[in-house]
Amino acid sequence: MVNFCSDNVVGAAPEILAALAAVNEGAAMPYGDDEVTARLRDRFREVFETDCQVFPVATGTAANVLGLSVMTPPYGAIDCHRDSHINVDECGGPELYTGGAKLVALPGADAKLAAGPLAEVLAQGGAGVVHHVQPAAISLSQATEAGAVYRPEEVAAIAELARQHGLGLQMDGARFANAVAFLDCSPAEASWKAGVDVLAFGATKNGCLCAEAVVVFKPELAETLEYRRKRGGHLFSKMRFLSAQLEAYLADDLWLRLARQANAQAKALAQGLAALPGAELLHPVEANEIFVRLPGALAEALRARGFAFYDWPAGGPGAIRLIAAFNTPAEAVQAFLEAARAEAEAGQRQSA
Amino acid sequence: MVNFCSDNVVGAAPEILAALAAVNEGAAMPYGDDEVTARLRDRFREVFETDCQVFPVATGTAANVLGLSVMTPPYGAIDCHRDSHINVDECGGPELYTGGAKLVALPGADAKLAAGPLAEVLAQGGAGVVHHVQPAAISLSQATEAGAVYRPEEVAAIAELARQHGLGLQMDGARFANAVAFLDCSPAEASWKAGVDVLAFGATKNGCLCAEAVVVFKPELAETLEYRRKRGGHLFSKMRFLSAQLEAYLADDLWLRLARQANAQAKALAQGLAALPGAELLHPVEANEIFVRLPGALAEALRARGFAFYDWPAGGPGAIRLIAAFNTPAEAVQAFLEAARAEAEAGQRQSA
Amino acid sequence: MVNFCSDNVVGAAPEILAALAAVNEGAAMPYGDDEVTARLRDRFREVFETDCQVFPVATGTAANVLGLSVMTPPYGAIDCHRDSHINVDECGGPELYTGGAKLVALPGADAKLAAGPLAEVLAQGGAGVVHHVQPAAISLSQATEAGAVYRPEEVAAIAELARQHGLGLQMDGARFANAVAFLDCSPAEASWKAGVDVLAFGATKNGCLCAEAVVVFKPELAETLEYRRKRGGHLFSKMRFLSAQLEAYLADDLWLRLARQANAQAKALAQGLAALPGAELLHPVEANEIFVRLPGALAEALRARGFAFYDWPAGGPGAIRLIAAFNTPAEAVQAFLEAARAEAEAGQRQSA
Amino acid sequence: MVNFCSDNVVGAAPEILAALAAVNEGAAMPYGDDEVTARLRDRFREVFETDCQVFPVATGTAANVLGLSVMTPPYGAIDCHRDSHINVDECGGPELYTGGAKLVALPGADAKLAAGPLAEVLAQGGAGVVHHVQPAAISLSQATEAGAVYRPEEVAAIAELARQHGLGLQMDGARFANAVAFLDCSPAEASWKAGVDVLAFGATKNGCLCAEAVVVFKPELAETLEYRRKRGGHLFSKMRFLSAQLEAYLADDLWLRLARQANAQAKALAQGLAALPGAELLHPVEANEIFVRLPGALAEALRARGFAFYDWPAGGPGAIRLIAAFNTPAEAVQAFLEAARAEAEAGQRQSA
Repeated sequence: MVNFCSDNVVGAAPEILAALAAVNEGAAMPYGDDEVTARLRDRFREVFETDCQVFPVATGTAANVLGLSVMTPPYGAIDCHRDSHINVDECGGPELYTGGAKLVALPGADAKLAAGPLAEVLAQGGAGVVHHVQPAAISLSQATEAGAVYRPEEVAAIAELARQHGLGLQMDGARFANAVAFLDCSPAEASWKAGVDVLAFGATKNGCLCAEAVVVFKPELAETLEYRRKRGGHLFSKMRFLSAQLEAYLADDLWLRLARQANAQAKALAQGLAALPGAELLHPVEANEIFVRLPGALAEALRARGFAFYDWPAGGPGAIRLIAAFNTPAEAVQAFLEAARAEAEAGQRQSA
Repeated sequence: MVNFCSDNVVGAAPEILAALAAVNEGAAMPYGDDEVTARLRDRFREVFETDCQVFPVATGTAANVLGLSVMTPPYGAIDCHRDSHINVDECGGPELYTGGAKLVALPGADAKLAAGPLAEVLAQGGAGVVHHVQPAAISLSQATEAGAVYRPEEVAAIAELARQHGLGLQMDGARFANAVAFLDCSPAEASWKAGVDVLAFGATKNGCLCAEAVVVFKPELAETLEYRRKRGGHLFSKMRFLSAQLEAYLADDLWLRLARQANAQAKALAQGLAALPGAELLHPVEANEIFVRLPGALAEALRARGFAFYDWPAGGPGAIRLIAAFNTPAEAVQAFLEAARAEAEAGQRQSA
Repeated sequence: MVNFCSDNVVGAAPEILAALAAVNEGAAMPYGDDEVTARLRDRFREVFETDCQVFPVATGTAANVLGLSVMTPPYGAIDCHRDSHINVDECGGPELYTGGAKLVALPGADAKLAAGPLAEVLAQGGAGVVHHVQPAAISLSQATEAGAVYRPEEVAAIAELARQHGLGLQMDGARFANAVAFLDCSPAEASWKAGVDVLAFGATKNGCLCAEAVVVFKPELAETLEYRRKRGGHLFSKMRFLSAQLEAYLADDLWLRLARQANAQAKALAQGLAALPGAELLHPVEANEIFVRLPGALAEALRARGFAFYDWPAGGPGAIRLIAAFNTPAEAVQAFLEAARAEAEAGQRQSA
Repeated sequence: MVNFCSDNVVGAAPEILAALAAVNEGAAMPYGDDEVTARLRDRFREVFETDCQVFPVATGTAANVLGLSVMTPPYGAIDCHRDSHINVDECGGPELYTGGAKLVALPGADAKLAAGPLAEVLAQGGAGVVHHVQPAAISLSQATEAGAVYRPEEVAAIAELARQHGLGLQMDGARFANAVAFLDCSPAEASWKAGVDVLAFGATKNGCLCAEAVVVFKPELAETLEYRRKRGGHLFSKMRFLSAQLEAYLADDLWLRLARQANAQAKALAQGLAALPGAELLHPVEANEIFVRLPGALAEALRARGFAFYDWPAGGPGAIRLIAAFNTPAEAVQAFLEAARAEAEAGQRQSA
């Protein structure tokens, strides 16, 4: 069975698994006082070309909520897209870690926030009015939940708003690798140079077993993060096993290589599907996610042939989501497209 | 260098690492809807001989605080030993996950709670008085933070108190394997048969990379746990990698074999150290932790020879803590004891 | 100066003040164990014709958030109107008291939720999906923040949805008296008979100094409320002074008499303003709030004459909000309307 | 019946009630934007001889928890006496408002913390260790829960510790008036001049209906307090009624006059009881609370005669607590003492 449900249905890249074995021998001080983690911090500083602070954690939700928690007081508000992972898919995690802040769920095409509408929201945002939660942070998903990618200048425009209003800018980078691969820019350009304060640097979806990092670009925001990580239960005792995943992920640009593979297969899928009569892409395919409305009963027919993917009811009847992973074989994509073409033709004959 | 600082300074058992590679191939549905996790649930039910609910997580703090959160309302109180991990070493994690419950820190020899004093505390516990936090849970560490092990009848006496007062009974089993190995009883006898409602089943310290499980023996306590785990950021997307560790850990009683090895080396250490003139064990050595007061400058001398361990100021001058891990070599223990004997003799000659 | 800014800019009714003096003599046990509070509980049961539980508090926010807190777990969701007080004007109070629940902000004409759209929201509400906050409660404001009043059958239709989905139904009754006065129904019909589980029964705006009551119609929801009130800092030691306000408020239907006065003046204001050329009521005036768009610079001209009221930017240019209080004199209303007519005429002459 | 149970069993002073009526007329902007509150702020600055920030609230718990919340992060620790109101009698309020901080319950004679032992606690307080909650605040009750009064130099010694360790110093001044009356010093000397950062200035027990104030002596600690007060549900809409109580309370030193009356009657009670054969004062009587162990069945005999007071089990058999209020009549005290002498004699005859 070929499974396009998500990039988390696949396993880990062999390089990542090998790294676990490689650091297994010998004693290492726990909780991050080990050599692997020390090296990892340096490596992140190289990759991001700045003196950032790095906090490895095991899940994307942990990375997001910890990042938000250092910039948002309990009476604060976080502006985010209404489809964002933090708003929809973390079961109230941001609220837990901030002590009850409010997520302000905003619209926006392709699950993107745009500086223009956001400026209007902030202009009436209630800053200084005691009855209202106080604007504290903006959160962007890169790539977005609709598979689109913010251009650095788009991020910068939002960061400028954040600066004007005294807000933090957090980036949910669960698919940061896919975004950087698409943008073909430096990690720095996609993050702190565009004004991002804290990045949830994702790695699990793109080849790790369980590894993300909170990357903090403003030193003052890092001061309390280690206590928050600990009390959240996210400080690993055998930290070397988290750090080793990330170290291998960053080594020799493995992370970008894997992301490029995923993006390439996603692009192939998108082009193939878009060419089907009656099919329509719902969002630009810039990273590794494809949202497409298929005609008639095509989705069902493909599922009956053993392909797995999610229906996407928000996209209307026939809409589905496909995600290509770092190790999705080109053959699987071609098999899927051939099946789609065959079924589409059969469907047309039937309806003719 | 031989490192006795903790059982989390060592790596993982080879069987556990191998299990990660073994489950890496192919697609698996995320968030626990995979076959490995399904098998694991069955395996836990076999091992514990009851229809328990199992929630894998990556850290011991996560396992503790999630277990406590389902039995303690925000206005609740948790009775625990003042030296317990939840009170001292989780940076307020229980408070975060319960929404602000209070930990009532109680004394007790060898870091154990005893039913007698606990009954007195509960008799004046403020139940029903609106001004006071309401008694909600009792938490026991097995083995304790002083290396002692509760006998099933000790647990049962405390569980009877919990029942009388309508409290939940949580067990911090970060070293549950070491305790069961010492008791030579069944896991069921050490847990639910003695009245434990929720167990934090530890595995990281005893050979896993990062794997614990919240094991819930009362179905009604499990109902909300999955939401709490998710919003805490503890639901793994690639859950198979957590479950595989635990599956291998439970397979063929690996967990007990590893714990017996650690306990045996701890016993050897304890016996060797106790025989030194002027040395004194501070607590019974029943699991894999040794607390010992060494005469004069012996601790420093051993450290100078390259042995690593923690000072234990609470035990007075010269007190140290040693922990044997699942893979602590007998040779390392013997080398340490020989060095200790040599240094002790040298010390005596000097002071003579 | 005549002040129409809010019904909280006025003082207290003389009957309420007199009640404070009347209960001042002698000793009374604190924290609600006094005779006044005992009588008040009975009085509420008479007024609401059912065996409700009553918890006096001093503010409307306290009454709302405590009521919500007993029906909403930390991982829960509360469906409410996007303009509701709990969503906009309590600075995250519901989030604090629920431990981080999420308010789902919904649209709806006249700040009302309607059963139809709500049913759709609930149908996709994520119940049982671990990633999503779990639907837990629905909150209605009676009267609404736009001055409209839910008919009992409208409440009942929403209550039926709540029942189907296992949700609690909370009513923010900051202006419950005005709503009941408008509906000319019994308090029971406007609350529990229509399916309301917990009512924040407002009294401050309608003649008290500082008194509201959480009225709980489902006994099981009352069990933990007293602990939550205490830890929130809302349990008065000299409770008689809260209870006496509410007792006097309910005596001889004072509360309805005061509300009818406010509603009558609001109606007079609305009719007078609606008759002005170019003026437009933005919402039906059913309680004591008027939202009206005034032509040209009329609002400014009236303000220059010494009348106080709020601009209402959400209603567009020229929109204002006026609120009539329990003691707003008919003369003040007439003076305002005369001034408005005079200024409107002058404005027309100018533009002619 | 004469009731010595607490200083909250009595009503309000006539001056306070009169003040409510005096501010009732006319419109006043809500939420503290009124003239009474503006005057009150100035008055507090006069009384405390410094540019403090003042936040009126209705309960002592609210005043305490809000004060603590601005100096204690969620991962923080608050050092307090184990008998302190915040630790025992606020049902977890500090935990709620701080987002889950830990109260470190310390011993100390007469419910006082002393600088010496506190210095030791802080020396091992875990500052900077990620596993431990981080020392954030010290809280003192003035007068203490045992009726003792900190001397300014005692407070200053503790404040010096707070300064050294970077902690805030909060004072629970539920009986601050009684303490100042006893000390015969200025309010400034008893608070900020001794190093207090935030004072919960009590007034309810000493003659108000429901009025306390959070008085903040460090401007930076006041910045977020208004948002925390609002979301806690403690911002009064008709604020003038809170402020008027406090204004009258401070006018012409009414507060000190009332406190002196209470203290004087407490002293008379203490002296009379101490003279009884077999009676023993458990704590120095410095404010208005008396803790005394009475011989034999004396307590019961007095209760049978219609005097009300609390048993104090912590003081051993026969121990009771009496509290004199601002309006406790000298005759009531004398009647009580005469009854006590008569019953004591009768008791002695019986046992002879």
